[in-house]
Amino acid sequence: MKTRAWATPAADQPLAPFEVDRREVGPLDVQLDILFSGICHSDIHQARGEWGNSKFPMVPGHEIVGRVTKVGAQVTKLKVGDLAGVGCMVDSCRTCAPCDHGDEQFCQKGSAFTYNSTEMDRKTPTYGGYSKQVVVTEHFTLKVPTSLALQGVAPLLCAGITTYSPLRQWNCKKGDRVGVVGLGGLGHMAVKLAAAMGAEVTMLSTSRSKEADATRLGATSFALTTERSTFKTLAGQFDLLIDTVSAPHDLNSYLGLLRPYGAMALVGVPPKPLEVAAFSLINGNRRLAGSSIGGIRETQEMLDFCAKHQIVADVEVIPAEKINVAYERMVKNDVRYRFVIDAATI
Amino acid sequence: MKTRAWATPAADQPLAPFEVDRREVGPLDVQLDILFSGICHSDIHQARGEWGNSKFPMVPGHEIVGRVTKVGAQVTKLKVGDLAGVGCMVDSCRTCAPCDHGDEQFCQKGSAFTYNSTEMDRKTPTYGGYSKQVVVTEHFTLKVPTSLALQGVAPLLCAGITTYSPLRQWNCKKGDRVGVVGLGGLGHMAVKLAAAMGAEVTMLSTSRSKEADATRLGATSFALTTERSTFKTLAGQFDLLIDTVSAPHDLNSYLGLLRPYGAMALVGVPPKPLEVAAFSLINGNRRLAGSSIGGIRETQEMLDFCAKHQIVADVEVIPAEKINVAYERMVKNDVRYRFVIDAATI
Repeated sequence: MKTRAWATPAADQPLAPFEVDRREVGPLDVQLDILFSGICHSDIHQARGEWGNSKFPMVPGHEIVGRVTKVGAQVTKLKVGDLAGVGCMVDSCRTCAPCDHGDEQFCQKGSAFTYNSTEMDRKTPTYGGYSKQVVVTEHFTLKVPTSLALQGVAPLLCAGITTYSPLRQWNCKKGDRVGVVGLGGLGHMAVKLAAAMGAEVTMLSTSRSKEADATRLGATSFALTTERSTFKTLAGQFDLLIDTVSAPHDLNSYLGLLRPYGAMALVGVPPKPLEVAAFSLINGNRRLAGSSIGGIRETQEMLDFCAKHQIVADVEVIPAEKINVAYERMVKNDVRYRFVIDAATI
Repeated sequence: MKTRAWATPAADQPLAPFEVDRREVGPLDVQLDILFSGICHSDIHQARGEWGNSKFPMVPGHEIVGRVTKVGAQVTKLKVGDLAGVGCMVDSCRTCAPCDHGDEQFCQKGSAFTYNSTEMDRKTPTYGGYSKQVVVTEHFTLKVPTSLALQGVAPLLCAGITTYSPLRQWNCKKGDRVGVVGLGGLGHMAVKLAAAMGAEVTMLSTSRSKEADATRLGATSFALTTERSTFKTLAGQFDLLIDTVSAPHDLNSYLGLLRPYGAMALVGVPPKPLEVAAFSLINGNRRLAGSSIGGIRETQEMLDFCAKHQIVADVEVIPAEKINVAYERMVKNDVRYRFVIDAATI
């Protein structure tokens, strides 16, 4: 089935209209009319070939919300007319230990990612959510709560789960002191989610201009990381830091903010390796961790949590013809906090 | 009370006989006749002023085993004639949150370390175990099992707890795959302890000459880290890595050996910060942790565990007059695996 999309023809070219051929709905497949598709910073990295693994033409987009238009005979999770979501993955081997554990993102055979990847046959290219329709195997669809504004739900499928998962892994709970480093697409979700979990959230930012927003999003404190005094005043105060920064920064300073046994979870990817002094970790038995999106079960749990706490992303909805402009604005951090494409305009 | 000791007069001078004035035994104090005192690599760093915090004259030594010769009126843990141990600390504030939690090594007021430190009055210098006698407040003494060879017990007070603690923090258990990086004083204890906990232990070493010893100590596999193929063959295999290496090395390669959610615990201190790529941690939700000795309660637990499993350090007992020679040999890694001073020769 042919469907309209926007694609990047090559790393040095802008996105333009394109046509994708989606597979016919199989017994376990779900077909969606896409309603909203979020723009993630990783879309830009891959569309521009910055991670060295780009396949063109590329239809980016892994923050997809839509309505079910067709289901295969064996599908039980969703029915026609339901709202559904698709995140960063569309398949995995589903038999290895990580898949069995619900960590399809760590599939030992390699997950099938939603775009710039292949299906598990390792031949059929995958095309993402900047598109009118998509067909995905049932297991990799999510049920979308009907009580939330759908344009704000789309970014939950990547930015939401990427910040929810480390908060859960490190047992964020009522009364914990959580610091969120950087207020962008990921950071603003981390603040909302951690606050909803009952944590006292401190926003750690390079820019005083973010303070009012941080407070509105749920942070109870704000600290400027451009001031050395911040790292003295707050030394040893945090149970958990969620580091969303993808620019170079000094991890050792941040590690000093952790209590004994505290953890700093990286979800941003700076362009170069970062220096870590062994003493920064040894002193206080501190932990530096990474976290990569989340499995399907945990993503559903996150969506249900967001429904319960009425959490969505703060978004600016754009028509498809503004995607290239949006990319430019994102590179300048000029968005609060996520662009979402209105798929009706594709 | 005057007692004989060996001290470093200055960073550029060898150790020589010295006399220490120990305090009179107070109501909560325990006085020991020292029997054996282990030599830790950190003794050399501090005696030679390599960590920038050295106070001279310095009597090193924080792996102390002795026999109780006097106890204060309120002491209940030990009585005259008992075996006792003293590790890296001799006091802490005992009221802050970490102390309350049993982590006296992270005392918010700063622990009183066994040497090159001060008592909690921040005036009285502390002198370590290269000495005939020592007086320590009861809380910071350990009960030493009578069933173990005492010269091999001394290194448990630092090398033992330093490796036991991360194994416990990361829940090492039967069937886990644990890699120990580096076979020295710390590494040989990590192998023995992890094996006794039921883990399958792999020794990761730069030298094939360590293989026979690794096997004897309890490792079931051996891999050469000088061969790139090791990092392919063993990729994603380990639940836990205990990294005892204090030389520069590529952490990213080792992180790739971890399973999803696996942890690498640093207990060695390389001279310079190490580079960590965010993707090394993000891919697989991996953790890089540090671990610093252990609290008194956990140190006692470790000694009791060692008694149960008949674990002691492999040592070479030397007379005090060989301390300087021992330092030179340790710098060349020429010891299997710990020097211990026979305190009768001091």
